[in-house]
Amino acid sequence: MLLKGLREEVLEANLELVRRGLVLYAFGNASGISRKDGLIAIKPSGVPYERLSAEHVVITKLDGEVVEGDPRPSSDLPTHLEIYKQFADVGGVAHTHSEFATAWAQACKPIPCFGTTHADSFHGEVHVTRCLTRDEIVSDYARNTGGVICRHFSEVDPDAVPAVLVAGHGPFCWGASAAAAAYNAVILESVARIAYYTLTISPDAQPIASHLRDKHFLRKHGKDAYYGQEKTQ
Amino acid sequence: MLLKGLREEVLEANLELVRRGLVLYAFGNASGISRKDGLIAIKPSGVPYERLSAEHVVITKLDGEVVEGDPRPSSDLPTHLEIYKQFADVGGVAHTHSEFATAWAQACKPIPCFGTTHADSFHGEVHVTRCLTRDEIVSDYARNTGGVICRHFSEVDPDAVPAVLVAGHGPFCWGASAAAAAYNAVILESVARIAYYTLTISPDAQPIASHLRDKHFLRKHGKDAYYGQEKTQ
Amino acid sequence: MLLKGLREEVLEANLELVRRGLVLYAFGNASGISRKDGLIAIKPSGVPYERLSAEHVVITKLDGEVVEGDPRPSSDLPTHLEIYKQFADVGGVAHTHSEFATAWAQACKPIPCFGTTHADSFHGEVHVTRCLTRDEIVSDYARNTGGVICRHFSEVDPDAVPAVLVAGHGPFCWGASAAAAAYNAVILESVARIAYYTLTISPDAQPIASHLRDKHFLRKHGKDAYYGQEKTQ
Amino acid sequence: MLLKGLREEVLEANLELVRRGLVLYAFGNASGISRKDGLIAIKPSGVPYERLSAEHVVITKLDGEVVEGDPRPSSDLPTHLEIYKQFADVGGVAHTHSEFATAWAQACKPIPCFGTTHADSFHGEVHVTRCLTRDEIVSDYARNTGGVICRHFSEVDPDAVPAVLVAGHGPFCWGASAAAAAYNAVILESVARIAYYTLTISPDAQPIASHLRDKHFLRKHGKDAYYGQEKTQ
Repeated sequence: MLLKGLREEVLEANLELVRRGLVLYAFGNASGISRKDGLIAIKPSGVPYERLSAEHVVITKLDGEVVEGDPRPSSDLPTHLEIYKQFADVGGVAHTHSEFATAWAQACKPIPCFGTTHADSFHGEVHVTRCLTRDEIVSDYARNTGGVICRHFSEVDPDAVPAVLVAGHGPFCWGASAAAAAYNAVILESVARIAYYTLTISPDAQPIASHLRDKHFLRKHGKDAYYGQEKTQ
Repeated sequence: MLLKGLREEVLEANLELVRRGLVLYAFGNASGISRKDGLIAIKPSGVPYERLSAEHVVITKLDGEVVEGDPRPSSDLPTHLEIYKQFADVGGVAHTHSEFATAWAQACKPIPCFGTTHADSFHGEVHVTRCLTRDEIVSDYARNTGGVICRHFSEVDPDAVPAVLVAGHGPFCWGASAAAAAYNAVILESVARIAYYTLTISPDAQPIASHLRDKHFLRKHGKDAYYGQEKTQ
Repeated sequence: MLLKGLREEVLEANLELVRRGLVLYAFGNASGISRKDGLIAIKPSGVPYERLSAEHVVITKLDGEVVEGDPRPSSDLPTHLEIYKQFADVGGVAHTHSEFATAWAQACKPIPCFGTTHADSFHGEVHVTRCLTRDEIVSDYARNTGGVICRHFSEVDPDAVPAVLVAGHGPFCWGASAAAAAYNAVILESVARIAYYTLTISPDAQPIASHLRDKHFLRKHGKDAYYGQEKTQ
Repeated sequence: MLLKGLREEVLEANLELVRRGLVLYAFGNASGISRKDGLIAIKPSGVPYERLSAEHVVITKLDGEVVEGDPRPSSDLPTHLEIYKQFADVGGVAHTHSEFATAWAQACKPIPCFGTTHADSFHGEVHVTRCLTRDEIVSDYARNTGGVICRHFSEVDPDAVPAVLVAGHGPFCWGASAAAAAYNAVILESVARIAYYTLTISPDAQPIASHLRDKHFLRKHGKDAYYGQEKTQ
């Protein structure tokens, strides 16, 4: 079995989405990439999570060709592939229909950076893509979804805002690994929920000041990070 | 014991409604039909779910006559029967008072197709029936509820939108089996919840474009479906 | 030990409030009465639910005098006593700070009868009391709370609407037994939640028609009830 | 191992925050102080709760110097220290990003005292601090957060309102012990949730009258308290 470690990490990331209440039945998928091997490990399409094991995880090339695995890969695979091809530092991708992030996506509104919970993980608002055109939907839909996501990040650093809302659809998140992508998906849902409540309490709520946003993001991310146990101040 | 397999499937569908938090105490019911035998299996009236077993499931004819089973059938049986009589492809029906779907029913508003989560299961908005008249309520109430539901689908395909909101009451869902009906009830509640949040974030939110809606529904349903493991692309 | 059966029923009713998520820490209480003995069994004050056993339940007379039990009775006892004295058919009382019912109480708004989920248990809107005066609060507060509740039902049948919202405080529910009171408290919270969602979806939502309300309440309550297994149609 | 009892109490307070759903992953921290020893026990930075044991708890002096413990203390330690230095009766501090309290903090709105659930624990509205200035954020951020909190209480008794919302950030709570601080954090979240629902039902909702607020707070707190089992009326 190819890439046993990566398969297990991808399995675990998919299960984390379930444990945190982000996916209903089979509505979600997480993947990971081995950059060295040029191979992706992804959840199969439509297999219930309770029956999922590492052997069900499908291994594909970056062009989508299945290398190992009987079940068909997630139908969202082409979206994942575009993200891996365009975002060089990404090691994992997670897609869910988690309810609050999806509501922002359906409302076609970005999630404003209303507080430090948001800024701890996302360095500024979480963007919403434009709607896909009829042509982009009719053929090569999943790949075009990836394209619309990636073109959106021409002026935003995908490592600084590791998530996006696809208009009328739902969130895609990424990170240095499948685990990090799932972790960001969990936090995004909480951030989406708190932003929703904030807006209800105060329709005129404003994003936090840029220095507070920078302080929180940069204490956890990048070369000057000092939060947690692994890095030295 | 007649129709042991169907009884067990109906029991399991009823328990799924409980596990997913769709029913409080005994407020809900699921049924299944054996078209070959012309017999329906349905939850008994007012029996707590924790005491429910396959033997409690009541077997009736399509005219409502009890064929096997001591307890009285659900008082909503006549509504289920109308659905089975009018919708030829339906194999199961589920009724709940799940909180968000019921809120849309109480608000007498259809659930707009705001996103792909909705379109994956319901090919367009989930309709709300008209209110029943005083006469329809006073006599033959449950059967008239079924009648109002079915007449509503004269111009909508019940297989494409396998759910409806009964005004001032709550959702009825159906599907190819009791399991499919319960599955649709679970998804409807999530869709109702996300639509509620969407509307709060953006009171002017619009349904998704018809080509996106068609893409998502048709990749999972009908002859050209390609999602999941069972069908070939 | 006096009234062992009643103590156990009262214990179980209190635990049901916890299991259903209606009470946080010790914020709630249920009681039951033996009309024959003129004795009330009630939860002690401020004892955590996880340590509660039948022996902790306090037995008092209708004037509040403790007959058996070391711990002090719930500080809400005088409110329960007023309800028992004024509502002749009541066998149990439950008080919680369940979040949605409390929100309606804090908003000083009655819960409109928006649907059949409501009408199945409450025959019309759930009322909110007037605020207590300064004098009523300063002395004999808990008894005066009971007084304000009961005077409110001079023109409403407490058996038809077995719940009330005390303005700025929270819900009190009752029923034929402690179990029925707790059951009504659980349903009230669900009804309060659905009504809240209904109002958000449609600020102009209207109560259901009186014949639909009567149909649902009377099929479950009163001499012509036909729902469930215990009564004959 | 220093202060084993305090370490265990602090561990338990941190775990209570998790059990009650107030913290996601490692986003929160509770501490306790031994006034006699002048030592603080606090959760380490960024250690997942499931791996947390009493040995991981870090012991520091009031100036922040670590006395015992390998892991780095929570990055919010300087905020806790300011609170211990300024509020003489405080024995424990808890900080979370619990979702409803955080939403009020992000909306920069105090939580009004809408009902007795609130008044039972907080003697009046829960305040929101001013935003920190750029200078306060750039250097000594966590200590300045504590400073802004404490200056806010020059005219409010911190024992009467044992919580505050830091603007754009989230709640800090305190109490006579780490357990009391966590308990107040749990109640604050429920109070924040009920206040949110109240405001949605009635945008013009008013705080309860001062005599009702005083009645509820003072029956549980201060020298004339009579609620519960430990004090005599």
